[in-house]
Amino acid sequence: MKQEELKKILADISTQKLSPAKAFEILKTLPYEDLEFARIDHHRHLRSGLPEVIYCAGKSPKQVLTIVQKMLKARSDILATKLAPDVFKGLKRQLPAKASYHESSQTLVIRHKRKRETAGLIVVVTAGTSDIPVAEEAAITADLLGSRVEKIFDVGVAGIHRLLDKMDRLREARVVVAVAGMDGALASVVGGLVENPVIAVPTSVGYGASFNGVAALLTMLNSCAAGIATVNIDNGFGAGCMAHKINLLGEPEGER
Amino acid sequence: MKQEELKKILADISTQKLSPAKAFEILKTLPYEDLEFARIDHHRHLRSGLPEVIYCAGKSPKQVLTIVQKMLKARSDILATKLAPDVFKGLKRQLPAKASYHESSQTLVIRHKRKRETAGLIVVVTAGTSDIPVAEEAAITADLLGSRVEKIFDVGVAGIHRLLDKMDRLREARVVVAVAGMDGALASVVGGLVENPVIAVPTSVGYGASFNGVAALLTMLNSCAAGIATVNIDNGFGAGCMAHKINLLGEPEGER
Amino acid sequence: MKQEELKKILADISTQKLSPAKAFEILKTLPYEDLEFARIDHHRHLRSGLPEVIYCAGKSPKQVLTIVQKMLKARSDILATKLAPDVFKGLKRQLPAKASYHESSQTLVIRHKRKRETAGLIVVVTAGTSDIPVAEEAAITADLLGSRVEKIFDVGVAGIHRLLDKMDRLREARVVVAVAGMDGALASVVGGLVENPVIAVPTSVGYGASFNGVAALLTMLNSCAAGIATVNIDNGFGAGCMAHKINLLGEPEGER
Amino acid sequence: MKQEELKKILADISTQKLSPAKAFEILKTLPYEDLEFARIDHHRHLRSGLPEVIYCAGKSPKQVLTIVQKMLKARSDILATKLAPDVFKGLKRQLPAKASYHESSQTLVIRHKRKRETAGLIVVVTAGTSDIPVAEEAAITADLLGSRVEKIFDVGVAGIHRLLDKMDRLREARVVVAVAGMDGALASVVGGLVENPVIAVPTSVGYGASFNGVAALLTMLNSCAAGIATVNIDNGFGAGCMAHKINLLGEPEGER
Amino acid sequence: MKQEELKKILADISTQKLSPAKAFEILKTLPYEDLEFARIDHHRHLRSGLPEVIYCAGKSPKQVLTIVQKMLKARSDILATKLAPDVFKGLKRQLPAKASYHESSQTLVIRHKRKRETAGLIVVVTAGTSDIPVAEEAAITADLLGSRVEKIFDVGVAGIHRLLDKMDRLREARVVVAVAGMDGALASVVGGLVENPVIAVPTSVGYGASFNGVAALLTMLNSCAAGIATVNIDNGFGAGCMAHKINLLGEPEGER
Amino acid sequence: MKQEELKKILADISTQKLSPAKAFEILKTLPYEDLEFARIDHHRHLRSGLPEVIYCAGKSPKQVLTIVQKMLKARSDILATKLAPDVFKGLKRQLPAKASYHESSQTLVIRHKRKRETAGLIVVVTAGTSDIPVAEEAAITADLLGSRVEKIFDVGVAGIHRLLDKMDRLREARVVVAVAGMDGALASVVGGLVENPVIAVPTSVGYGASFNGVAALLTMLNSCAAGIATVNIDNGFGAGCMAHKINLLGEPEGER
Amino acid sequence: MKQEELKKILADISTQKLSPAKAFEILKTLPYEDLEFARIDHHRHLRSGLPEVIYCAGKSPKQVLTIVQKMLKARSDILATKLAPDVFKGLKRQLPAKASYHESSQTLVIRHKRKRETAGLIVVVTAGTSDIPVAEEAAITADLLGSRVEKIFDVGVAGIHRLLDKMDRLREARVVVAVAGMDGALASVVGGLVENPVIAVPTSVGYGASFNGVAALLTMLNSCAAGIATVNIDNGFGAGCMAHKINLLGEPEGER
Amino acid sequence: MKQEELKKILADISTQKLSPAKAFEILKTLPYEDLEFARIDHHRHLRSGLPEVIYCAGKSPKQVLTIVQKMLKARSDILATKLAPDVFKGLKRQLPAKASYHESSQTLVIRHKRKRETAGLIVVVTAGTSDIPVAEEAAITADLLGSRVEKIFDVGVAGIHRLLDKMDRLREARVVVAVAGMDGALASVVGGLVENPVIAVPTSVGYGASFNGVAALLTMLNSCAAGIATVNIDNGFGAGCMAHKINLLGEPEGER
Repeated sequence: MKQEELKKILADISTQKLSPAKAFEILKTLPYEDLEFARIDHHRHLRSGLPEVIYCAGKSPKQVLTIVQKMLKARSDILATKLAPDVFKGLKRQLPAKASYHESSQTLVIRHKRKRETAGLIVVVTAGTSDIPVAEEAAITADLLGSRVEKIFDVGVAGIHRLLDKMDRLREARVVVAVAGMDGALASVVGGLVENPVIAVPTSVGYGASFNGVAALLTMLNSCAAGIATVNIDNGFGAGCMAHKINLLGEPEGER
Repeated sequence: MKQEELKKILADISTQKLSPAKAFEILKTLPYEDLEFARIDHHRHLRSGLPEVIYCAGKSPKQVLTIVQKMLKARSDILATKLAPDVFKGLKRQLPAKASYHESSQTLVIRHKRKRETAGLIVVVTAGTSDIPVAEEAAITADLLGSRVEKIFDVGVAGIHRLLDKMDRLREARVVVAVAGMDGALASVVGGLVENPVIAVPTSVGYGASFNGVAALLTMLNSCAAGIATVNIDNGFGAGCMAHKINLLGEPEGER
Repeated sequence: MKQEELKKILADISTQKLSPAKAFEILKTLPYEDLEFARIDHHRHLRSGLPEVIYCAGKSPKQVLTIVQKMLKARSDILATKLAPDVFKGLKRQLPAKASYHESSQTLVIRHKRKRETAGLIVVVTAGTSDIPVAEEAAITADLLGSRVEKIFDVGVAGIHRLLDKMDRLREARVVVAVAGMDGALASVVGGLVENPVIAVPTSVGYGASFNGVAALLTMLNSCAAGIATVNIDNGFGAGCMAHKINLLGEPEGER
Repeated sequence: MKQEELKKILADISTQKLSPAKAFEILKTLPYEDLEFARIDHHRHLRSGLPEVIYCAGKSPKQVLTIVQKMLKARSDILATKLAPDVFKGLKRQLPAKASYHESSQTLVIRHKRKRETAGLIVVVTAGTSDIPVAEEAAITADLLGSRVEKIFDVGVAGIHRLLDKMDRLREARVVVAVAGMDGALASVVGGLVENPVIAVPTSVGYGASFNGVAALLTMLNSCAAGIATVNIDNGFGAGCMAHKINLLGEPEGER
Repeated sequence: MKQEELKKILADISTQKLSPAKAFEILKTLPYEDLEFARIDHHRHLRSGLPEVIYCAGKSPKQVLTIVQKMLKARSDILATKLAPDVFKGLKRQLPAKASYHESSQTLVIRHKRKRETAGLIVVVTAGTSDIPVAEEAAITADLLGSRVEKIFDVGVAGIHRLLDKMDRLREARVVVAVAGMDGALASVVGGLVENPVIAVPTSVGYGASFNGVAALLTMLNSCAAGIATVNIDNGFGAGCMAHKINLLGEPEGER
Repeated sequence: MKQEELKKILADISTQKLSPAKAFEILKTLPYEDLEFARIDHHRHLRSGLPEVIYCAGKSPKQVLTIVQKMLKARSDILATKLAPDVFKGLKRQLPAKASYHESSQTLVIRHKRKRETAGLIVVVTAGTSDIPVAEEAAITADLLGSRVEKIFDVGVAGIHRLLDKMDRLREARVVVAVAGMDGALASVVGGLVENPVIAVPTSVGYGASFNGVAALLTMLNSCAAGIATVNIDNGFGAGCMAHKINLLGEPEGER
Repeated sequence: MKQEELKKILADISTQKLSPAKAFEILKTLPYEDLEFARIDHHRHLRSGLPEVIYCAGKSPKQVLTIVQKMLKARSDILATKLAPDVFKGLKRQLPAKASYHESSQTLVIRHKRKRETAGLIVVVTAGTSDIPVAEEAAITADLLGSRVEKIFDVGVAGIHRLLDKMDRLREARVVVAVAGMDGALASVVGGLVENPVIAVPTSVGYGASFNGVAALLTMLNSCAAGIATVNIDNGFGAGCMAHKINLLGEPEGER
Repeated sequence: MKQEELKKILADISTQKLSPAKAFEILKTLPYEDLEFARIDHHRHLRSGLPEVIYCAGKSPKQVLTIVQKMLKARSDILATKLAPDVFKGLKRQLPAKASYHESSQTLVIRHKRKRETAGLIVVVTAGTSDIPVAEEAAITADLLGSRVEKIFDVGVAGIHRLLDKMDRLREARVVVAVAGMDGALASVVGGLVENPVIAVPTSVGYGASFNGVAALLTMLNSCAAGIATVNIDNGFGAGCMAHKINLLGEPEGER
């Protein structure tokens, strides 16, 4: 139901074109979608400028292309995750020049114009080099959403000094995203070192009893450090969103 | 928002006490709860005579009593599940005479008046005698909701003739609820013997690698027989509801 | 034992060629298979018009073809599930023109003549677009069995308004099939919105801690909404059968 | 190494009591603990006013009392979690009058003086009434840390209208803590309804295939809504800390 | 259908009271249960002298007593497993003098007269002393069924010489029942040492990553030795039955 | 220590070349391997005529060939399991003419001369057609070892009459091997129908919550029927060995 | 076979009472147990002075007492683990005065005389205070075996400085035993800080997704630091043994 | 902070260029990285001669090459694990002649000059031939680190005599590395046979309920033999490191 329709019903009662009883019958069964314009509007307002996100795993190249093209028409910024390199190669020619593909994280970004960057900093750290693709997905996501992002890779706790060396940067961050596979211990140590919120991202890096990231996930969920919350295994995108939303809260109110 | 309130707003427009613009303002921001009477009414219609259900596990005796008393005032039929015998004993004196407690299934029923029973039959079968409490919970639930229920216990497939002996009854049923722990194989066999839908209920009966009902649950989910769907381990209540809803569909349309 | 043999025994008693005592000895030990024609007949009666179903996973293309050809001779309707596109391509030329293959759900249908459709409606909903193949398997199955089916895709609960917009259709359904991977929360929300039975189908869509559908499966088994039962992960076929059987119960008794 | 010692070494160089070369030898091997006062100081500054937290599970009543008494001397605010009612009863007489025990969440708070409350709001929602103890732990924690907290209980998604009714409050929150057991679907739906970060807390409420909170945990980790992160099962304390840290970021910089 | 009824039908044909055609109609639809006397008879024959078995876990003392008393009237030998000592104490006075209770294995035996013992030997070995209750359940079961049984306890593989010392006895056995918790390695070693079949019984003895017998179960299922098969965790009864059935096959044909 | 060496020591004592005390010193520390000829001899005796078995999974084609050729020289019968068709193709030309490869079960047999067959019968039954490869592995193994084997395929319990039709054959068997994936319920039903031992073999057939055979495995371990023991998932070879060993016990003692 | 018997055989050959051929026949079939005195002797030598260990869980108080008394007669040092305080209380009066019971670790030690202590140091560290009982079990075990042991408790990685403060002690240790529940991250960090071997002991401390120590176990197995090996959850005894054996290797050869 | 900088600060105090108070301010906030040279130096000393290790799984061939080349410049010995044969083939031409690749264990070694070998012996044993690649990884690692290593393959416990034959070698070893998949029982038996520490390595060899090494892992963690510790599934490298570190402790102190 459009606002206009509702206004008309109300006007019709007022002008006696519609009895209150009849109007009651209409309004009583009013489906939610008819009132939904409020939320849709609100959403549009809130989300204006946000990229649209396409999770490409399990979609055919054709489906991905169709969605991308529809979005391009709407001039939305676009973030496509888990887009395999060979699928990207097939699509490449049909994408605009500004499309930027990041191979190791399998992420495609199409950005219409650079957003203003937050003053607050998100630092993304990884335990090893194999965790980098997931970390990049988080960093690209947060960056596209408008956050200032810094990356520190390969500072796993088995050589704790590598991490301690970076403490200044970690403490400067408004949010830290800690990405680790195998033993996943990085998140606990980082959580003990910084005051600000930490988003922990387990990765499927490892073998044997890492169970494709379950070991790291459990480590992170059981961290004794307060101020840590965890996302799904390999979910760099989710961590990037969450980190950005938190980061945004720290911006001066006018800028959020 | 009560229906009365909405009616009043509409009447007020009609009598010019309220301008359409003002009414629009009120209705536009109409929280869902304000329209909710529609669903409530609808619900009330559909559910009229339906019992209120209290899941007692994890509620204190006092909480249970408070809820029961509130419901009694509303003259609702009441079904309380997982109500431990000793908790019941403590409450007993404060309950009305018609309160009926079924100890092995830990179920309390307070019924105001007997409903008309469905023509269609629900048959609840169990593999063993230890599955009976869960089966009783299903049977009591479906019975309270208005279904005709018959119970056949201890017809597990390790002695398949016991089950085959009951085939007439099974085939007469509009829905069969198959309750089994340990190997849970009963559901598959029943599913192959009857044409009508089968609701499978795994129970936590067993030891060792039954893993408190997981073995039976997996068996039921993997049944090769078509026309089986499964509820949670020990969820007699859920099976009773589902069976009743299906049974109701078979009643002449006026009676549903 | 063939019917003819039994008839002969009985005739022989009647004509005194066989004493009742001898006949008793023969019939007493009558193996089940000898009486099995009864159930076969009965089955044939009950199942006349039903399609034969071939689960193709793990069968060689040659095995699939052999079974299809035998069924075609018997003029059965045929439903082949999990038939990989490349296997289908190899078989295509040897199939009759009316063979219809649905690629994303990997389903082959060969139908001899259109059945009368049920008055009752099955609505199949999915949380995301990646759940569609499983949903199509359910829809095709129920449709082939004779049910009227409607499909609503991509109404996952992370954008609850998309689902609420479709409430009219959902409430009109006699059975709802809710198909979802990842968090599987769709089934719970749908279960709370409709009065009729809901069949929940977890899918293996997701990554990391979705554990190939286990997360969605557990969500569905633990749903607080009453009137939900669950089938195996990715088991669109099973859901379609179950939904059809329930739907059929709502038809006027002559039409079941 | 105490600050005094370091100061002395430096003074000794200045007064030539110690050669720079000797001092270098001493400082070069300076164990981390010797510099640790820096971080301790820094910590003390940052954490001044923060409560000390005692996780009581697995500690003897005597151990709990000893720790509490030591903290009381230091005039710290105290938060003791998972403190069983009977243990509390035994300690009660030895605690100061201002000690406040919350039975259902098994939380003890001893607060010296009320902190200024944040402008920003944390809303804690639960799916059911059995999730309340964990929600209370989160609320008490965040409140003690200085956050403004509001609680909305029993708005599970099986009756989605109960949740939609509270949308205004949810959207006003700077952080939402969503607490749910069984199917855990609440977090996904809330995550789709609000713009701000959501902390999801699975609870061990449920039975059978809820596996003591695993089902809810997996649901939450797999949520399709962006902007959700999860803490350990029943970890109300962790959720309260994380929510407070996020909430604090939204305060004007001087107040953080 | 009772035998008498079938006899009557056959007689009626013979005396022309019933036409063969009518009799055919009756017999054609003969439900399985009507022929079931055959199997029952057969069963009775085969099983004559076998004990009746009551699995007591999850049965009330009263239920156990009722079943025992019914069986005593039928003069059956009785084996009751998982009968807790305190339950037994309550029942004791109502049991006949010959009732013999074995406390550590929680087994009750009531035997009317000693059966002839098999020539073949079953050897029951355990890895540790904590596995003895399960081993005793197996031994008591096989003994009651008529097998000659020998027990060798505490010969776990961490001290392999203890096992090698007993090789003569093991090799003499017609069947070996290997009972072990913790690492469950006993079955593999025994399986490599003897030619005859080995029944492996994992026990729930252990802690931590023994997961209540899962570790031992997996070890046994993965044994490289040929000629091993496994029963459920702590299922001494099942192992005893299986071992006895195998042992019986080795007896001279007249004695089986 | 070779036999010759031991003989020499003993002779030397006899001829006083060696004092008993010295001999004692030598023999006291006699390493186990030195006496090992006894067991090897014994083994050779017991196992004469038995095939050598090669588990090919994880061995290179070259390794397989080398082992086969060494065995051929020793004129052993050979059984190679899990030998992939393409690996076999590569080896084919280098194998003797009598080498017989069974493709679906991936089994290679090289037999020098036909053994006498047991009088006793092993019946191998499967629930579905996809379980046949594992069943064939069991049947080929038992056959090669010398057992008479009969195969009954596709008699799953979802159509229980198919199984009941075969009861005569099942009851005639000395051992039944029940092979089933998905719900694995076949073993329980068979176990209730026959008196003799049943070896249950779960297969990895199925999808979703079958977890590659775990569902079937758990079903079989939890079977209520007495006289069932289980082997590893897909372990046709192990079942064949176990069944043969049991079958052999039923042969007249001279023939074992 | 006793040594005497072997000596007699050898003497008999020497005195021609026994022919070498006959002796060969006897010795050829010499069962392993007959030679076993060698290993027993060797064992006795190696293990002289070692305590006997009783794992008390699952043993009755009477069984424990019997074993203790037998050992006391043999004047063995005794270590009894998992001995519940109330069981100990019952036994106390019957134990010698030097019996020393450690309540939190549930360990009983009876030592006849103090052994010489190793020069090498074992350091046992714990992440939290709740891990202390398991750490004490390890420390008591290693101490009783003769190792010099030092304990550092509550240095979990969420406050990494607490651990770094103790680096001197850690680096001085010849073996470190790292005991941690919850996230188990301590082992990884310690493993990166020290050169010597680390034995990691997961504990069942934690709740929710710690799964009684599984989270910590997986963390430890997946540690990126080289030079870590893990024992079972809560297995302080095993860690103490392993640490002592390693420590012993570092002693001057004469002292091992 | 470089050493030079610290020296300069200290000199400046001495020469009054810097007041002790100012120096205190600088040193108080001294970030850990500034003192880190101490540990780096120490590390360099300790680790001089140690190989650098590259875990290649999940690294691109180009990444592996870059790291190798950087290390070669530093003249480090290099150990690259999990380097797939086809990746190696691509790199081969760019590697120095002394590069040695071990195909079955997928290990690359580049060694500049042979180290002195330890007097102590590490024995690596495997249960089967399929466990060899993991065993080789362990052996190559320990050998490269400087340990004397001996390998004994295919001595699984299903034929215990094969293992007993090798007891001399096992007992001579200072550390035993026991490598086994499937039932993993080898470690328990070895642990009972030798006095020295045993490192257990589960492998992913097996099928069905071996769950890719989980069965073997659990067996090893639950071993009753004292003096065993376990590493991750297939972690030959970790076992090699641990074994070498233990072995080193047994060398004369000057040689460690």
